[in-house]
Amino acid sequence: MDQDILYHLALGSGSHDLHEMFGDVKFVCMGGTPKRMETFAHFIMEEIGYKLPAGTQLQDISAFSYRYSMYKVGPVLSISHGMGVPSVGILLHELIKLMYHAKVKDPIFVRIGTCGGIGVEGGTVVITEDAYDGLLRNSYELAILGKIVHRPAILDKRLVRELKSLATHDDPYETITGKTMCTYDFYEGQGRLDGAFCEFTETDKMAYLEKLRDFG
Amino acid sequence: MDQDILYHLALGSGSHDLHEMFGDVKFVCMGGTPKRMETFAHFIMEEIGYKLPAGTQLQDISAFSYRYSMYKVGPVLSISHGMGVPSVGILLHELIKLMYHAKVKDPIFVRIGTCGGIGVEGGTVVITEDAYDGLLRNSYELAILGKIVHRPAILDKRLVRELKSLATHDDPYETITGKTMCTYDFYEGQGRLDGAFCEFTETDKMAYLEKLRDFG
Repeated sequence: MDQDILYHLALGSGSHDLHEMFGDVKFVCMGGTPKRMETFAHFIMEEIGYKLPAGTQLQDISAFSYRYSMYKVGPVLSISHGMGVPSVGILLHELIKLMYHAKVKDPIFVRIGTCGGIGVEGGTVVITEDAYDGLLRNSYELAILGKIVHRPAILDKRLVRELKSLATHDDPYETITGKTMCTYDFYEGQGRLDGAFCEFTETDKMAYLEKLRDFG
Repeated sequence: MDQDILYHLALGSGSHDLHEMFGDVKFVCMGGTPKRMETFAHFIMEEIGYKLPAGTQLQDISAFSYRYSMYKVGPVLSISHGMGVPSVGILLHELIKLMYHAKVKDPIFVRIGTCGGIGVEGGTVVITEDAYDGLLRNSYELAILGKIVHRPAILDKRLVRELKSLATHDDPYETITGKTMCTYDFYEGQGRLDGAFCEFTETDKMAYLEKLRDFG
């Protein structure tokens, strides 16, 4: 390509020096809302003792996309991904291309967020070992040129172990590893009874959640 | 339910008088970004000659959700839906419940946005007659409690005719009716060659687009 426009990030390989801007990135952290990821950027700044030059403040790098918010704190990017797989999907395509243009080698991508937990106490930190869709398939299904394609949903087992090793007995919460299910629908797709539509009973829901619990 | 919390709108049937706030709504207009829907609210205010009380300005009703932005101009709601079906889905569940609590009878829901066009000139306004998924099915597929369910994707034919009748020969663009395809993926799902991954050729893409053109 002549130039690569990362439209939803308000960045481009022709308009920005992406190597200069992002060449030192090691961690790409994603979460739902702009507000949460701004807070996370400040949290990380404190954690790693990163100092901004005097008279500067963090800026939303993707503000003019009106889509995602992106903050950079040294080697850490903190980016909002909106709600749902398609929104995350656009972001991942463009972030992977961004890391390519920035010549970053093997950056670590992490999604951080809230999630319903099945059979675990509220507040538990779950590090995802394996991801499943709404039909309990360990793959990402998508339609490409009218044909169904499955891509294996494989996570980095070493990263899971490393993250787990950071938990300590002093933490005011438990940290475990487990399977995570990702659905395309928040209400019916996740067995909620209080959406605008619901054609199943509380008994059906509980039977399904028990099945999920047995599945891990 | 004791009270209905419309979490992603930052509204609730217990915390807000939804009938008082939204009882006069007739049109629920949705589009992608917060910025665009704020602009649309101001555009509609001008169009219908709606006057705000002196010393007031439009306020983002859902600002504290950090998810969607909602503006109200008399009978018109203008709301951002983010990117992708799951994000729109959460919004529709909560807006349908909002209209129910507000006791609004038969509100009209419209999505307004940009879209790739196949075989039509850029800038053409297309009023969707029928919606199709990435496999050219005229239905909305979702997984509920681990089982695939299809819901017919039916649009209001009378509304299509009414909207079409508002177009005039003086418009600096053409207004037509047509089928709209909705995919779960912006890059591979819509035949783009410039995502981070692409396993098809430009020839494959063009053959697919021609198939879509023949389909209408």
